[in-house]
Amino acid sequence: MSDAIQSLLFPKSIAIVGASPDSNKLNGRPFHFLRRDGYAGRLYPVNPKYDEIDGVTCYPDIDALPETPDMAIIAVAASRATEAVAALGRKGTPVAVIFSSGYGETGEAGRLLEEDLAEVARQNGIRICGPNNLGLINAFERMPATFSQYADKTPMPGPVAFASQSGAFGTGIAALARSRGIGLGYFVNTGNQADITLMETLDVALDDPRIKVASAYLEGLKGAGQLIDLAEKSLALSKPLVVAKVGRKAAGVRAAASHTGSLAGEDAVFDGIARQHGIIRARNEEHMLDLVSALSFGPIPKGRGIALITQSGGSGVMMADRAEEIGLDVPELKGTTREKLADVIPEFGALGNPIDVTGQFLADPKILSDSVRIVLDDPDVHIAVVWLQLMHGYADMLIDVFRELRESVDKPFIVCWIEAPEKARIALRDAGICVLPATERSVDAAAGLVAFGEAQRRRSGTPKQKTVFHDNQVAAPSSPVPSLEAGKRLQAAGLQLAECKLALNAQEAAAAAGNMGFPVAVKIESPDILHKMDIGGVQLGLMDEEAVRAAGVEILDSVAKLTPEAQIDGLLIQAMATPTTEIVLGLRQDPAFGPVIMVGLGGIFVEVLKDVAFARAPVSIADAGLLLDSLTGSAILEGVRGQRPVDRGALTMAISQLSDFALANPDVVELDLNPVFAGPDGVIAVDWLMMSTAGQRRS
Amino acid sequence: MSDAIQSLLFPKSIAIVGASPDSNKLNGRPFHFLRRDGYAGRLYPVNPKYDEIDGVTCYPDIDALPETPDMAIIAVAASRATEAVAALGRKGTPVAVIFSSGYGETGEAGRLLEEDLAEVARQNGIRICGPNNLGLINAFERMPATFSQYADKTPMPGPVAFASQSGAFGTGIAALARSRGIGLGYFVNTGNQADITLMETLDVALDDPRIKVASAYLEGLKGAGQLIDLAEKSLALSKPLVVAKVGRKAAGVRAAASHTGSLAGEDAVFDGIARQHGIIRARNEEHMLDLVSALSFGPIPKGRGIALITQSGGSGVMMADRAEEIGLDVPELKGTTREKLADVIPEFGALGNPIDVTGQFLADPKILSDSVRIVLDDPDVHIAVVWLQLMHGYADMLIDVFRELRESVDKPFIVCWIEAPEKARIALRDAGICVLPATERSVDAAAGLVAFGEAQRRRSGTPKQKTVFHDNQVAAPSSPVPSLEAGKRLQAAGLQLAECKLALNAQEAAAAAGNMGFPVAVKIESPDILHKMDIGGVQLGLMDEEAVRAAGVEILDSVAKLTPEAQIDGLLIQAMATPTTEIVLGLRQDPAFGPVIMVGLGGIFVEVLKDVAFARAPVSIADAGLLLDSLTGSAILEGVRGQRPVDRGALTMAISQLSDFALANPDVVELDLNPVFAGPDGVIAVDWLMMSTAGQRRS
Repeated sequence: MSDAIQSLLFPKSIAIVGASPDSNKLNGRPFHFLRRDGYAGRLYPVNPKYDEIDGVTCYPDIDALPETPDMAIIAVAASRATEAVAALGRKGTPVAVIFSSGYGETGEAGRLLEEDLAEVARQNGIRICGPNNLGLINAFERMPATFSQYADKTPMPGPVAFASQSGAFGTGIAALARSRGIGLGYFVNTGNQADITLMETLDVALDDPRIKVASAYLEGLKGAGQLIDLAEKSLALSKPLVVAKVGRKAAGVRAAASHTGSLAGEDAVFDGIARQHGIIRARNEEHMLDLVSALSFGPIPKGRGIALITQSGGSGVMMADRAEEIGLDVPELKGTTREKLADVIPEFGALGNPIDVTGQFLADPKILSDSVRIVLDDPDVHIAVVWLQLMHGYADMLIDVFRELRESVDKPFIVCWIEAPEKARIALRDAGICVLPATERSVDAAAGLVAFGEAQRRRSGTPKQKTVFHDNQVAAPSSPVPSLEAGKRLQAAGLQLAECKLALNAQEAAAAAGNMGFPVAVKIESPDILHKMDIGGVQLGLMDEEAVRAAGVEILDSVAKLTPEAQIDGLLIQAMATPTTEIVLGLRQDPAFGPVIMVGLGGIFVEVLKDVAFARAPVSIADAGLLLDSLTGSAILEGVRGQRPVDRGALTMAISQLSDFALANPDVVELDLNPVFAGPDGVIAVDWLMMSTAGQRRS
Repeated sequence: MSDAIQSLLFPKSIAIVGASPDSNKLNGRPFHFLRRDGYAGRLYPVNPKYDEIDGVTCYPDIDALPETPDMAIIAVAASRATEAVAALGRKGTPVAVIFSSGYGETGEAGRLLEEDLAEVARQNGIRICGPNNLGLINAFERMPATFSQYADKTPMPGPVAFASQSGAFGTGIAALARSRGIGLGYFVNTGNQADITLMETLDVALDDPRIKVASAYLEGLKGAGQLIDLAEKSLALSKPLVVAKVGRKAAGVRAAASHTGSLAGEDAVFDGIARQHGIIRARNEEHMLDLVSALSFGPIPKGRGIALITQSGGSGVMMADRAEEIGLDVPELKGTTREKLADVIPEFGALGNPIDVTGQFLADPKILSDSVRIVLDDPDVHIAVVWLQLMHGYADMLIDVFRELRESVDKPFIVCWIEAPEKARIALRDAGICVLPATERSVDAAAGLVAFGEAQRRRSGTPKQKTVFHDNQVAAPSSPVPSLEAGKRLQAAGLQLAECKLALNAQEAAAAAGNMGFPVAVKIESPDILHKMDIGGVQLGLMDEEAVRAAGVEILDSVAKLTPEAQIDGLLIQAMATPTTEIVLGLRQDPAFGPVIMVGLGGIFVEVLKDVAFARAPVSIADAGLLLDSLTGSAILEGVRGQRPVDRGALTMAISQLSDFALANPDVVELDLNPVFAGPDGVIAVDWLMMSTAGQRRS
């Protein structure tokens, strides 16, 4: 399969079907660009209207070509594109880029046309990139096979592979990258992704030793499994993967669903899985390029302690605010560090963190370079941001300072330089130093480096599992598994559940409760009743047999009155656990990512704040800890109102066990453990609802 | 007072004490800049070393000056600055800018020196700006009285007045503004603010009809009362006030406290008061300038509905995400609007909101201009962002489209243009159109316009009250007001409280409870016990007289054992209210802002999430609504778990009454109503603690 992608990125020859001599036209631009940049392969324009274009022989049709082209660009109307794909396939061309539009992006008729196109390609053994695509660029090989405005100037190669589903936004981002001096070794637009996905192209690009960072702009999650594999490869190769995905909120998802053919997916699921797999998520185009800049220079920090070194107290405060907000540590410096700094920094500076070296470093550059060195030497500091503004008269001095620092320190630092002199910006970039132009953004970029490092350390213990699943699975019909059976299956997986028994009537219920001990809960058991509370199907805190008998009668009466058609399997008697911190655990079959585990704080947190986090099974113990830490209300686990902290080990174990259960039980398409009581001495689920596609198996 | 500020901003003559002929030196730069830019007033260098500087007579000392200078710059060492200030004051100079450093910013000794400087100034009738200040610029009058690097190029005048406490960060922001083409009519650095505050300078600048927006960078809250007055003036004049204040988080506050002399204040208080008074808060320097750009062009939108018009579906999704996140409405367009759009936009575009006009507008510009016009005509749309990228070949066409739109539509729109051609950026700015270069930032800027409009509408009904209070009030000793008396005072202000009575012993308590009706709570009443729960001083839900008597005995025993020295005033018997949604209301005397009201969601929300919001008294009903809406968990007020919504009218009324109480009772320095039960039928406080400076008045 990746042979076709090889041909896509490194074609030895390119046919341009529908080529035009007019370099202002969509179908004339690739030929023009390729010739301008000196593409070294062979070029075959195909168009019956012309004998030659710019001195190059033009062929009337694909069959007339003198050799099998290694790659083809199809720049004809959609009505003729399918035929061209078939002809190329028959000739043996492994891959074609399809500029043509009028497919899935236009509605239902277009979607059918796109399916047909993909099917014809499959039948003829040719892979396609697109349609509705503006092509790709391999800047190393001077191969701008595109009509993107980005190629109006010769693309500049560099350590970044960038792939975008969107042509327009992708072009904008690529142009922004260029004006920041970020070289894009590869820029690929995958358009509608009828076949080749963005992840496949980045997978091949990551193998290129010249590439240090991969970056993607996503609008949907076609190829979600490939995304996971790509992320694992990025961690293994230490080449970060930066992803911007739109559709974070309801309004955006509404737009995304109508805009692209593929399902946007639940964003919180994507967010959790990105965090789990070390995908560095960017909020927007600027954030993406800030991250790409920082990550392409490295090195990766070994912890989350950040030092903030400034010549303006206020900027230090702003950076400290931001660092705290996004979960970085701003450690107070060690006593020995402060002593060393005191020898270097003028009296009116600040030795804390932020560190204010004062403007005196302009007279004595050693104040700055020694300070940075001393601070980075502190064991609690893993990365630094050095903040500057203007300094047009001191560019050369500062270039020397930072170059020398880069060579002599091991830990990463980012220079935040407001209105930096052009000269310094370029010189520092060439010296392998990331320079960013805005205060908070510099801290955000540092956080990206930290996150990648943490993901590498967290994932290093997790065995790699090849991801195999299909996109957009059709949900099979499912039905509830009886509570006792569901409970047994969960207990077999190691999960702790409240003890329970099934009784056929109120009298049996009272007897069962007597054997179990009080207090107990009584709940209706029925495959037809999923929300027992709403119809008077639950009574809690019953203290003796008589109370249980009365409750049983009431429940059966209420249920008979309110849902007369429901099949009643009996009454469930359950030992009451001591209420501690309420947690919600869940399992879902995500259409893009397969089985995912949800963790939330129960009660009002999940209802009002939607405070939940997701990860993909398998969820390691470390992943489970990350899940807990990413909850807004995670402080509650440490104990509030005088409570002792929750048994974190038991809770992360339960989450991990639930994920193992998910993998071992593909028939379970939905599972809620709600609530789970998490206390200082363990974790116990007191209610659960399991939905299975395996039919209603009765015990 | 403002005569001195007039002289500061519009001096007819300037003395430069310690002037140097070397234009690279701090003390040589202002003279050089003022001459270069053609300052029209008279210049008097003062330095015994020189007879003339650059052809201008230099005077040996202040007494030798031929006239009383209207303003003076003091550019000598701190050791000589006090003497210079005294001499200038004696001569009748109304104001001096003090470059000298080595004052409060360096520690305790410097702080004393600064106090002395301010005192000498006061005694000699001269006001001072600084010290530790890099001066100010009135660009309209070509008056760069500064050594800031920003003045290395002639400052460009424009509609923005910018004042900064920080010299270094202020210079960076000013330089950024220039490179964005934002003209700063005034740029003032106020340094340590030993006397003249940033607010005073902006107050005078706002009166200038050439100024449309005021903007401030704050590190502390000296002159907080002036800030409120400035905000009210900004709303009244419709000239927005954009403020960046550092110290949002603990780490930042730690740094801010050590960095500046003035107290950073509790950031949440500042945040709430800014929102209440229509101060548009900026997170960082870029956000500040984005807001300044958008607000200097206007017009101000009449609602919070935003339309997002793009040529790339993805950018529309990203903007919709962001709009939802920050509380803007992204309305679905009306049917008639969609019908009109359908006649204009190609079939494969999107008529929803976001609106995708497709790239076809390059061939037919009317697609874009008609779409924007139709969308802005929708009554639910109050502002639009139009998103573009590159388009270097179409700059002229697009300039025409947007100019024509600006002239023909009444509602505001912002153009978000990624990598815009320089030519277009300048032409649109000159046409009064805000162009921003980044997707999410454009939405953030639109939100600033919306927030200002909402504040104007909300405040228009609130009577203006002159703010008079002192900075950093010393807290007077306070003591708890007995519960019954506190209750009476609160009831007199209109607040609803649970009924209560005081009993001297357990027997009396039982009788009192019998008269009141059950259930009741019994609580210890003592001026020495503020946390009754912790020492067994509270029993709840007592159902009969015997239970009350027993509880009374237990409470008195427990208290006697655990706090034997406490003065016991008796037992408080209180009717139990039906528990509904728990709210916390509070009153504090903020050292910067005077009496502030706190509102929070009770229980876990306030404990774990610190979900509280603040406003300054008086709090109008509309302000109270804003307070509730700004709580993270505000959805809980609309009813969760099947509950009916909270009586919002009663709750906002209670908040407003509490703020009136605060103004009428300055002896009350702290008050907690916790919890307050807010239900569908009203609001009732069930526990309160009032601290007063008026001494322990016993009923």
